[in-house]
Amino acid sequence: MGTEIAEISDVALPEARQIPEVVVAAAGDALRTDFESRLRHSGGHSLADLLERRSGKIPDAPDAVLVPEDEDRLRAVLEACREASVAVIPWGGGTSVTGGLTNREQGFAAVVALDMEKFVKFEVDPVSMTAKLGAGLRGPEAEELLGREGFTLGHFPQSFEFATIGGFAAARSAGQASSGYGRFDEMVTALRLVSPAGDLSTIAGPRASSGPSILEMVLGSEGTLGVITEVTVRVRPAPETSIYEVSLVRDFQSGLRIVRDLAQEGALPTVMRVSDRVETEISIGMSRPDGMAGAVFDGWLELRGRTEGSLVVTGYEGSRNEVRTERNATRRALSRTGAVGLGKGAGRSWKEGRFHGPYLREALLDRGLVVDTFETSAVWSGYAQAYSAIRDRTTERLGTLGMKGVVMCHLSHAYPESASLYFTVIATPGPDGPVASWQAVKTAAMDEIAAAGLAVSHHHGVGRDHVDWLEAEVGPSGIGALRALKAAFDPTGIMNPGCLLPRSESDPHRHR
Amino acid sequence: MGTEIAEISDVALPEARQIPEVVVAAAGDALRTDFESRLRHSGGHSLADLLERRSGKIPDAPDAVLVPEDEDRLRAVLEACREASVAVIPWGGGTSVTGGLTNREQGFAAVVALDMEKFVKFEVDPVSMTAKLGAGLRGPEAEELLGREGFTLGHFPQSFEFATIGGFAAARSAGQASSGYGRFDEMVTALRLVSPAGDLSTIAGPRASSGPSILEMVLGSEGTLGVITEVTVRVRPAPETSIYEVSLVRDFQSGLRIVRDLAQEGALPTVMRVSDRVETEISIGMSRPDGMAGAVFDGWLELRGRTEGSLVVTGYEGSRNEVRTERNATRRALSRTGAVGLGKGAGRSWKEGRFHGPYLREALLDRGLVVDTFETSAVWSGYAQAYSAIRDRTTERLGTLGMKGVVMCHLSHAYPESASLYFTVIATPGPDGPVASWQAVKTAAMDEIAAAGLAVSHHHGVGRDHVDWLEAEVGPSGIGALRALKAAFDPTGIMNPGCLLPRSESDPHRHR
Repeated sequence: MGTEIAEISDVALPEARQIPEVVVAAAGDALRTDFESRLRHSGGHSLADLLERRSGKIPDAPDAVLVPEDEDRLRAVLEACREASVAVIPWGGGTSVTGGLTNREQGFAAVVALDMEKFVKFEVDPVSMTAKLGAGLRGPEAEELLGREGFTLGHFPQSFEFATIGGFAAARSAGQASSGYGRFDEMVTALRLVSPAGDLSTIAGPRASSGPSILEMVLGSEGTLGVITEVTVRVRPAPETSIYEVSLVRDFQSGLRIVRDLAQEGALPTVMRVSDRVETEISIGMSRPDGMAGAVFDGWLELRGRTEGSLVVTGYEGSRNEVRTERNATRRALSRTGAVGLGKGAGRSWKEGRFHGPYLREALLDRGLVVDTFETSAVWSGYAQAYSAIRDRTTERLGTLGMKGVVMCHLSHAYPESASLYFTVIATPGPDGPVASWQAVKTAAMDEIAAAGLAVSHHHGVGRDHVDWLEAEVGPSGIGALRALKAAFDPTGIMNPGCLLPRSESDPHRHR
Repeated sequence: MGTEIAEISDVALPEARQIPEVVVAAAGDALRTDFESRLRHSGGHSLADLLERRSGKIPDAPDAVLVPEDEDRLRAVLEACREASVAVIPWGGGTSVTGGLTNREQGFAAVVALDMEKFVKFEVDPVSMTAKLGAGLRGPEAEELLGREGFTLGHFPQSFEFATIGGFAAARSAGQASSGYGRFDEMVTALRLVSPAGDLSTIAGPRASSGPSILEMVLGSEGTLGVITEVTVRVRPAPETSIYEVSLVRDFQSGLRIVRDLAQEGALPTVMRVSDRVETEISIGMSRPDGMAGAVFDGWLELRGRTEGSLVVTGYEGSRNEVRTERNATRRALSRTGAVGLGKGAGRSWKEGRFHGPYLREALLDRGLVVDTFETSAVWSGYAQAYSAIRDRTTERLGTLGMKGVVMCHLSHAYPESASLYFTVIATPGPDGPVASWQAVKTAAMDEIAAAGLAVSHHHGVGRDHVDWLEAEVGPSGIGALRALKAAFDPTGIMNPGCLLPRSESDPHRHR
């Protein structure tokens, strides 16, 4: 069993609809209608997206891709798209795992992906320790440019290699080093947005009491209000040194307690991650000499129940002095619970492999397994209960669908009052096939998250996949506020339609 | 010369308009129409508000005061007010200094102040280190309740004695200890709002990527969207110890540099405040043995130009260990610039007097002087220029108006990328009288703030006094977004009309 990957010559894209003349004229050289451009902009990295591309049948490809070279061009194409009723999907690195880029919208003359790759502005303000970054800069590009000036952004999500600055802001990304450097939305001090209703530019100094935060309305807007063109972020001195270590603590609860104490003392290290028992088993399985990616699942089956404890990854970055201080505080907290250090070698391996998750996932998909993740956050007093409830509901649903699999969880983002829960599921597909069976499992998990009063996502975004649960989180008044904002920035609803907001009954484009 | 204070028997309130029957019925016992209730809810603490109340002629008094005992009553009265076109001014401590409570709106059947004093919920979650606080709790009440559980909120604005939790959230307040405990808007993890369009309750765990932040739309809304009924805030362990100290550094620039370095190293103490030369002179004048409040201005005239240096107040609160670490870092930074310590005695005096500003102001008003403040924030790279430009423009305007006076400034809230500028002006009134002449000076200062691309306020809010400059800050798209939110929560525009948002041409209530 396994998933075949179609040869590129066998890939079928839907026939491209005609791009209206007004858009063609406004776009000029920025218009791409070739096969490869369309293919490369067909969806993100959700399980459904990946399996669709593997199958070679891609009903979701956009009719064209626009690659504007500057804001003038961007304004012109948005105006033309508005005039011609063409849906626009802003495109950064294409790494959405929540259907933020699924883009064959009905009810429009055409759908275009708007690739921001030419927006690569870079300006550092070393005195204020901020940098103005073009929305199209990818993670490594931004780090490379900052590194030359002696700075780092410190934002390392698993999508780092491909995802862009604009995407990080639009989706409220959080990186693996968020304990030390903060979530991306916390790093942003200002941004620019080009929307169908006009430009928006927030002031350089965001600490203000000038009403509701305009900045916080655009962060997380996922391309539904307009296109983020540049983002000013706080930067830090490039770390003098870094140390990554792995320890084993008695159980998940002990690990959580250590993280909570450190978070509430303001003493969190740069990276702090605790895996539950199952994720600990899988991780140890992966690190065995024969632990090639494809053997992970078998490895887990073999190890199941034999591994005790909970893996804790800690990373320290900064000046030698900062690293020493942080590390001492964390090691004291760890040793109080009788943690066993697995050493810096294991830590280095973790750091080196920290962007490998997506590749491992591909290897597991090769073997025909369903692999996906979902995440939320909970206040500390409700964390353990939320963890059990979501894990149990997900596990139960796997069982009723006849899927053999594993549900594992880690905490990787901690705050004084709360922390994230990041679940990974690896399972055999159910009788209805991988996409439908995963959809059923994910629905059960999201129902449980909604019932517990938690966020639909901690850092993956709403996309199209979480839309049905958003009202449970923000209530009808919250939905009303989001709709009002949408109407103000994008009166005709061309920006990433179907993403973020539930379609209202009165939406002329309500077809999905 | 001096301002006479009217006897209460001479105070004239405008005749109260009839409260519509539907509101009377919905309000029940919550309705107050007596003279004292109306008088006590007539405006806030802006210069115009204070002088109006001193004069005894109070054209702005509300027609009635509503004091709902719970959310059910609140919903009922909002619905009735909506039906009867009665304007509602949510009321906490009445300490707005930006005209947030000026409340004799034309174009409505009546205007009522809605006093939240009965909303005194108090629930601590010691595990998550958060507390759910009723919007009507005043600063000292909240601290008292938290103190019994071993916690502090650490929010100590000058309005602390009177202002309420709801008001802190609605106006994005920042306290004197913001370097250690954060701005109030940063402390809020969740809140509840009752609006004419329905209730809004944000989830307990605010770290999420579920779209634009609903929480950040309500923070800073100044009663224009609805009424904040409860606020969940992060709390900290009550400090084991505290030390306050005062030092003198060479000049304002040296002081700024020390604060910037500490902010960017993440090593700021709990309180950090630097006064420019003039504020330093005034402060030293105030601390002389004969330095009674009324003698301050004379004292300054005498000392002018003789005092060198810049006063730095530093405060450390927390565990003994935290205080030692913070204090060592700050003292090292101070001593690198040759700062002279003025000792803990001066620090204690500062701490003891930190809520005295408003009383000192009254004493100066007694002498017929104009006294008011305004504030903004700037990124570090633009701080010095913003400081000079605003100070010079303000000073120049005083001169052209024939006002003899002093413009002074301090930094009291610092962040890695920016810091606040807090200006105080004490001057003799111009020939047009104190209100009109101050209005002219403030207009010049705000024009300069807007021209420099800075926020209309760092922590005082927009109110009615800063409305004219908001569009310069957020742009037409930002205004559009704010109007859209307003329409979603308050479709008929009864909530604090005239506050925060410029009146649109189409506003049926546009009369001011």
